Amino acid sequence: MEKKLLQGDRRALARLISMVENDDPAKTEILKKIYPHTGNAFVVGITGAPGTGKSSLVDHLLGLIRRQSLAVGVIAVDPSSPFSGGAILGDRIRMQDHVMDDGIYIRSMGSRGALGGLSRTTREAVKIVDAFGKDIIFIETVGVGQSEIDVVKYADTTVLVLTPAAGDSVQTIKAGVMEIADIFVVNKADLPGKDRTVTELEAMLDLSPGGDWRPPIISTNSLEGEGVRELWDEISQHRLYLEESGQLQKIRKQRARQEFVDQLEYLVKSEVWNRIQARVSVEDLVEDLLNRRTDPYTLAHELLHKIGLPTSME
Amino acid sequence: MEKKLLQGDRRALARLISMVENDDPAKTEILKKIYPHTGNAFVVGITGAPGTGKSSLVDHLLGLIRRQSLAVGVIAVDPSSPFSGGAILGDRIRMQDHVMDDGIYIRSMGSRGALGGLSRTTREAVKIVDAFGKDIIFIETVGVGQSEIDVVKYADTTVLVLTPAAGDSVQTIKAGVMEIADIFVVNKADLPGKDRTVTELEAMLDLSPGGDWRPPIISTNSLEGEGVRELWDEISQHRLYLEESGQLQKIRKQRARQEFVDQLEYLVKSEVWNRIQARVSVEDLVEDLLNRRTDPYTLAHELLHKIGLPTSME
Repeated sequence: MEKKLLQGDRRALARLISMVENDDPAKTEILKKIYPHTGNAFVVGITGAPGTGKSSLVDHLLGLIRRQSLAVGVIAVDPSSPFSGGAILGDRIRMQDHVMDDGIYIRSMGSRGALGGLSRTTREAVKIVDAFGKDIIFIETVGVGQSEIDVVKYADTTVLVLTPAAGDSVQTIKAGVMEIADIFVVNKADLPGKDRTVTELEAMLDLSPGGDWRPPIISTNSLEGEGVRELWDEISQHRLYLEESGQLQKIRKQRARQEFVDQLEYLVKSEVWNRIQARVSVEDLVEDLLNRRTDPYTLAHELLHKIGLPTSME
Repeated sequence: MEKKLLQGDRRALARLISMVENDDPAKTEILKKIYPHTGNAFVVGITGAPGTGKSSLVDHLLGLIRRQSLAVGVIAVDPSSPFSGGAILGDRIRMQDHVMDDGIYIRSMGSRGALGGLSRTTREAVKIVDAFGKDIIFIETVGVGQSEIDVVKYADTTVLVLTPAAGDSVQTIKAGVMEIADIFVVNKADLPGKDRTVTELEAMLDLSPGGDWRPPIISTNSLEGEGVRELWDEISQHRLYLEESGQLQKIRKQRARQEFVDQLEYLVKSEVWNRIQARVSVEDLVEDLLNRRTDPYTLAHELLHKIGLPTSME
């Protein structure tokens, strides 16, 4: 199947992402084989609270990017949605706009489909779309909680979308969310309060430690498409900055390390549990704990010794 | 130090919780030794969005419980706060009320203090307060996100506090939060909209699959203390239900298992990384990944073989 993917077969693409979602055991061999063909796409994360207009923003960006003859993929992740595989209404409407365009691939993923964890599934899906040959991949995610931050961390450039709406004031945004933004978008810029939102953002940026890149603030109106070209210009600017400063190399290295670490710990965990289950009854051990005949620390230590992984720790 | 703790030395109690927060290597030996003295306290989780009045609710409960001559501990966890160790203002004000009462111990924990992860730190702190001899332990936590759910899972009975405020409608509460509640409290019951909130909750409960215990809904006014006695009665009712149905034994067993699993995986992870770092340069491996000379799956597999933990997996 990976050969078909590398040849640009869209059905192979869709099926491979489904395999990743279903945590199909056969996926590992395929991910191994496509790995050499990854690392070419530039990945842009788009995040923000529900209703800030991320989807229509991305739609406008798609039109713009296609006119530059770049192939683009969108992975729309909604951690709070059980739906997956492009079944949600909004997704189908969006598909209609672009369905005739082979240069665009849109896929939505919900939490229920992600057996290996949404963060893991997203990472693997990005890899597949990357190997498929897309130049630009958007990870669009709804909400600004931990799961969204976890998902957006696979992006090279992250865009945080805000609106001037009252409940969406800059002060109400949780710590840890502002820090992930490389570019701020104040969407629905025709709403009252736009200037205040921009001012608040500027003030916050003035107070931030700040590196070589100061996140720009773009006002957009995603219904009309206003400001979208400027947004795309800034994304391209940020990409240039990452490439020229060596930052891109750095974050990709960091990401490769993390992926390897995750994979290693996943393998270790599986192996350790296989060995344990082959040797002892965990239920009996738990009984010993409940009766306070032992404690979890001593028990874990002894058990690892028993399965051939003696620890040097106390 | 554990001897002093078991003798009821409050300074030992405070110092041990700090050790746990700082992930002090010496903590494991102490946790081992106190383990046989744990499992006696009944643990009540109190959670809800910021501003719902959880703290004053707990304060009223403290007064009530103290009149029953029960010793009580409060662990106030704020995942979004960097403060720890009782330094926050609210905490100091609360301490004044109860500072002369040796039967009450209040401790706040913020995320910055929790080097081992807030969930782990909370679990260990509960254990210490339990071994110290408290009959009832409250875990009070601010917010209704994943970190709060993670923290409340160490409670035997969980109370979810809501208010009739507009933005706090039952429908807006995230999936996964309602399910953790054994008792619902509609606090600030004097505010308009109280009846609607109660009706919404009842409707939701009617639709829920429902087990043997149907979560009661208590209206309270934590400023005046109204409804607090009823709340305490319901907590006691729920405890009785848990004990008589065998549910308490079940959840404690489940919890003992989880604790052991966590401890085991923690040990394994440390051991594996110690072995790896003694043998190879992870940086070199990451370079190989970046140059696509290998892939994370093959690499993890090979490396585990090298450190004496060959996996049976592909």
